[in-house]
Amino acid sequence: MLKYQQIATEIEKYIEDHALQQGDKLPVLEKLMAQFDVSKSTITKSLDLLEKKGVVFQVRGSGIFVRRHKRKGYISLLSNQGFKKDLEEFTITTEVIELNVIKPSEEVALNLNIKADDDVYSVKRVRYINGQTLCLEESFYNKAIITYLNKEIVSESIFHYIREGLGLKVGFSDLYLHVDMLTEEEAGYLGLKQGMPKLYVETVFHLTNGQPFDFSKITYNYEQSQFVIQADSHFL
Amino acid sequence: MLKYQQIATEIEKYIEDHALQQGDKLPVLEKLMAQFDVSKSTITKSLDLLEKKGVVFQVRGSGIFVRRHKRKGYISLLSNQGFKKDLEEFTITTEVIELNVIKPSEEVALNLNIKADDDVYSVKRVRYINGQTLCLEESFYNKAIITYLNKEIVSESIFHYIREGLGLKVGFSDLYLHVDMLTEEEAGYLGLKQGMPKLYVETVFHLTNGQPFDFSKITYNYEQSQFVIQADSHFL
Repeated sequence: MLKYQQIATEIEKYIEDHALQQGDKLPVLEKLMAQFDVSKSTITKSLDLLEKKGVVFQVRGSGIFVRRHKRKGYISLLSNQGFKKDLEEFTITTEVIELNVIKPSEEVALNLNIKADDDVYSVKRVRYINGQTLCLEESFYNKAIITYLNKEIVSESIFHYIREGLGLKVGFSDLYLHVDMLTEEEAGYLGLKQGMPKLYVETVFHLTNGQPFDFSKITYNYEQSQFVIQADSHFL
Repeated sequence: MLKYQQIATEIEKYIEDHALQQGDKLPVLEKLMAQFDVSKSTITKSLDLLEKKGVVFQVRGSGIFVRRHKRKGYISLLSNQGFKKDLEEFTITTEVIELNVIKPSEEVALNLNIKADDDVYSVKRVRYINGQTLCLEESFYNKAIITYLNKEIVSESIFHYIREGLGLKVGFSDLYLHVDMLTEEEAGYLGLKQGMPKLYVETVFHLTNGQPFDFSKITYNYEQSQFVIQADSHFL
């Protein structure tokens, strides 16, 4: 972790420890520099990172303010960290249904930008929140990039393993969402009835070099899931 | 519009005109500087803006690449522009159901950070896509900020009016989503059956100074709507 990332984490902790609310003003730059004992350029980079993450907003000539949405228990759709962090007050568990090496379907090959005879890891899991079904997840990993998975790894956070175990850098992702009715199979896994509502999310995750490595399809139990997005306006 | 914003728009047009696809490489910095006749600092700011908007991604030591999700007809949940731009191949029309000045409910007052005896504009509309219902929208505007609305304005793009007519600067927004079943009233407006699935989105829009000015609740017709989010990883 670079210095400015570390300081950003500390400022986030400061906001949490002081229970600062949306609109509360942070100390001025000079104070922050002194408090964390860093240069102006470092503190500026830390604040820019926190602005991108939706933790603060900066008003020119006026200061730096806390940005914090007010609702608890919402899953962030913009976080690439998986939802463990959003739901840390809850117990999240995982049941692994399948883990195989397969040849990709046309859909998977297209989304991962690979050929029909390349290998992919296919992982099917059900995630639980406090013992209730949260979602059914089917993920396909390009085996040329994610070279090794086993049952133990996919029982825990796969992304943690990808970062720490494989040392890969996760970059941007494209999410496609729609709402529909549960199929019989999905309803079975989620313990709901066929025809009930679902949120269905397809995500293509890319490395920082732009290569897609994970195509994932998640079907959420609508009774257990709610979502938050913190959006910025870059269009003015 | 500032110079770098203008150049960013021109680079976007260049990508579109040349039908560049995800992963295609842009000309190197020096070429872009010459092509658009601007300084290095301007072109760098333009590219940073385009990266924030999800139009390009930059790979250190390797270049600038086009980032473009592959699916058409998806509504961007991160755009504060309204969905007219995402759906420009479709005909979007609006039916105004209600336009009133009212006192806010507790929920509205909380989300707009105003008092119970402040005034809000309450706007209820149904939006149509190619003649089919797309969504039911109920929005509440803090009248101290959005000082004037009339039926003509709310028949068109309210955000366009807020920017161009009132000269306000729209900043960040917080979106809260969940999936549920349509109530009888919602089903009536959308021409669907009670109990069918819906995506329900609440959004709090803020000015760049952090002041919330619009609290909006949208219920989407699941048969006519699909969504895209382009996410970045700021967590590494």
